[in-house]
Amino acid sequence: MQITFTTLLDLLGTFAFAVSGIRHASGRQIDWFGAYILGLVTAIGGGTLRDLLLDVTPFWMLDPKYFLTTGVALVSVLIFKERLLKLGSTLFLFDTIGLGLFTVVGITKSIDAGLPFWVCIIMGTITGTVGGVIRDVLLNQVPLLFRKDIYALACVAGGVIYFLCRYLNLPMGVTESIASLTVIVFRLIAVKFHLNLPHLQAIKSKSKRL
Amino acid sequence: MQITFTTLLDLLGTFAFAVSGIRHASGRQIDWFGAYILGLVTAIGGGTLRDLLLDVTPFWMLDPKYFLTTGVALVSVLIFKERLLKLGSTLFLFDTIGLGLFTVVGITKSIDAGLPFWVCIIMGTITGTVGGVIRDVLLNQVPLLFRKDIYALACVAGGVIYFLCRYLNLPMGVTESIASLTVIVFRLIAVKFHLNLPHLQAIKSKSKRL
Amino acid sequence: MQITFTTLLDLLGTFAFAVSGIRHASGRQIDWFGAYILGLVTAIGGGTLRDLLLDVTPFWMLDPKYFLTTGVALVSVLIFKERLLKLGSTLFLFDTIGLGLFTVVGITKSIDAGLPFWVCIIMGTITGTVGGVIRDVLLNQVPLLFRKDIYALACVAGGVIYFLCRYLNLPMGVTESIASLTVIVFRLIAVKFHLNLPHLQAIKSKSKRL
Repeated sequence: MQITFTTLLDLLGTFAFAVSGIRHASGRQIDWFGAYILGLVTAIGGGTLRDLLLDVTPFWMLDPKYFLTTGVALVSVLIFKERLLKLGSTLFLFDTIGLGLFTVVGITKSIDAGLPFWVCIIMGTITGTVGGVIRDVLLNQVPLLFRKDIYALACVAGGVIYFLCRYLNLPMGVTESIASLTVIVFRLIAVKFHLNLPHLQAIKSKSKRL
Repeated sequence: MQITFTTLLDLLGTFAFAVSGIRHASGRQIDWFGAYILGLVTAIGGGTLRDLLLDVTPFWMLDPKYFLTTGVALVSVLIFKERLLKLGSTLFLFDTIGLGLFTVVGITKSIDAGLPFWVCIIMGTITGTVGGVIRDVLLNQVPLLFRKDIYALACVAGGVIYFLCRYLNLPMGVTESIASLTVIVFRLIAVKFHLNLPHLQAIKSKSKRL
Repeated sequence: MQITFTTLLDLLGTFAFAVSGIRHASGRQIDWFGAYILGLVTAIGGGTLRDLLLDVTPFWMLDPKYFLTTGVALVSVLIFKERLLKLGSTLFLFDTIGLGLFTVVGITKSIDAGLPFWVCIIMGTITGTVGGVIRDVLLNQVPLLFRKDIYALACVAGGVIYFLCRYLNLPMGVTESIASLTVIVFRLIAVKFHLNLPHLQAIKSKSKRL
C-alpha cells in the first residue's frame, strides 16, 4: 500500500472521527465492542450512505484500512484515556481536516457518477456529517448536528467553492485543495467566534394531527 | 417545468410533510438548518428508502423541487409561525392528500420494477410513512406511527383497493385516483371517529435474554 | 414450497426474532400494527441492510414467508401472552439458532457476491445483529448489543471458523454446520457463564468540540 499525502489525511480524519464516536460511547455502560462499532459508524457512516445512494460498492468493502484505523483508535483510547484527549485541539484539527477531505471525496465520487452539481454538494455534505448523526441516534440523543456549530454549512460552503473553481477551469488538485480548505477554515472560524444559527422557537399547534 | 395537477398535489404533499417535520423540530434547541433537514427527511425519507430497496436512482436526485419546496416550508414557518398552523385543518388535508399520493406513487414505481403485488403494497406504505418514522427517530422519540391513528393501515387499504381496481381492468388514471381517495378517506374517517388499534399489553418475560 | 430442514430453522429463527421485537414493544403504548412492524424489522432488518450493501434484491421481496411468520408471531403473542414466554428457554434456543443460521446465510451470500473473507464475516455479523439494533433505536433505547452479552462476537467467531473450514477444504454443508454451531455454542456459553466484555469508562474531554 502506497501511502500518499491524501491517504495519510484520510487515515487521520478516520482516526479523529472514530475517536469522537468512541469518546461519546464512554461512561454509558457500553462495552469495548460497542465502543468500536460507534467509532466505526462515525467514521464510515456518511460515506456508506453516500455509496448506497450512488449505487456503488461501499468504499470500506474495498480496503480494510478503515476497520484497522478504528481498531487503533479504540486501543489508543483504552491505553491513553484522558491523556489522548489532552490532545483536544490536535484531535479537533484532525476531525476538521477529515471533514474537509471527506466532503471533497464525496463531491468527486458524485461527479464521477454523473450527477448534477447540487446533488454533488448534498453528497459531499452527507459524507461529512451523517456518521455523526448515526452515532448520536445510536446513543439515543438528538443529533448534535441539528443543535450547534455550523458544521454542515461548512460542507455546503466547501461544495459551492468547489464548483466555482471548476467553473473557472482550475486544475483538479487545486480545486480539491481550495474546497477542503474552505470547509476547514469555515469551521474553524465558526468555532472560534461561536457562530451559531438561530434556534427555531416553539410553535404551538392547535391541530394534534400534524 | 410543466405543472400538472399531479405535480401540484405532489408539491402540496411535500410542503405539508416538510411543515410537519419543521414543526416537530421547533422548541427543542434545534437550529434553522436542523429544522430544514428534519422537514426534508420527513418529506423525502420514505421515497428514498423505497428507491434504495428498488435499486433505482433516488427520486430527489432527478429534480431539485423537493429541496426547494422544503426551503419554502421553512421560510413560511419562520415568517408566519403560529398563523401558519391556524391553517391546521388545511395543512392536515394537504398532509393526508400527500399520504394518498405518495402511497400510489410508491405502488406504481414498484409495479414498473416488476415486483409482486404484496411487495408493491409494502412499498407504497413505506413511501407514505417512513419519512415520519425517521423524523421521530432523529428527534429521539418512539415513532408516532406505532402509537396512534390508523395511518399506515390507510396506505395498506389504498394498496389493496389499487390491485382490486387493476384486477377489474379499470384504466390506470381511475385506479390511481380511487386508490389515493381510499387512503385519504380511510384516514379522515379514522381521525374523525378516533379509531385506533388496541395497544399491546405489557408482557413480562422471565427470560432476560429475549 | 418444499420445507427443507434449513427452511424450518430459518422460519423458527424468524419467529424467535419477531417474538423478541414484539415483546420489547409490549407495555409501551404501542398498538398491534406497531408491534408487528417492530417484530418484522427485528427479523428482517439485518438481512435487508446486508442486501442493500451487497446491491442485491432484499431477500424478503422474493418470498412472503417472513411477513407471514411475523404475523404468526404476533397472533401467538396476542393469544398466549405470558404463556408463550414461559417457553423462555425454548424461544432463547430458537433465537440463538436463528443467530447462527442468519450469520451463515449472510456469509454465504457475500461469498457469492465475490467479496473478500473479512467483508463476508462483517456481512454475517450484520445479518445476525442489525435487526435488534434497529428494534432498539425505534424503541428509543441504546442498543442492547452495545451493552451486554457477547452477541456480535459470537457471529464474528462463527465467521472465522467458517473460513478456517473452507481453508481446510471441508465440504460446504459441513462448513456451514460447524460455523452455525460455533455461533450457537459461543453464545450459549457466554450467557451461561455471564461472560461480558468490559465497559468503556467515562472519559472527560476538555474540548467540547469532539
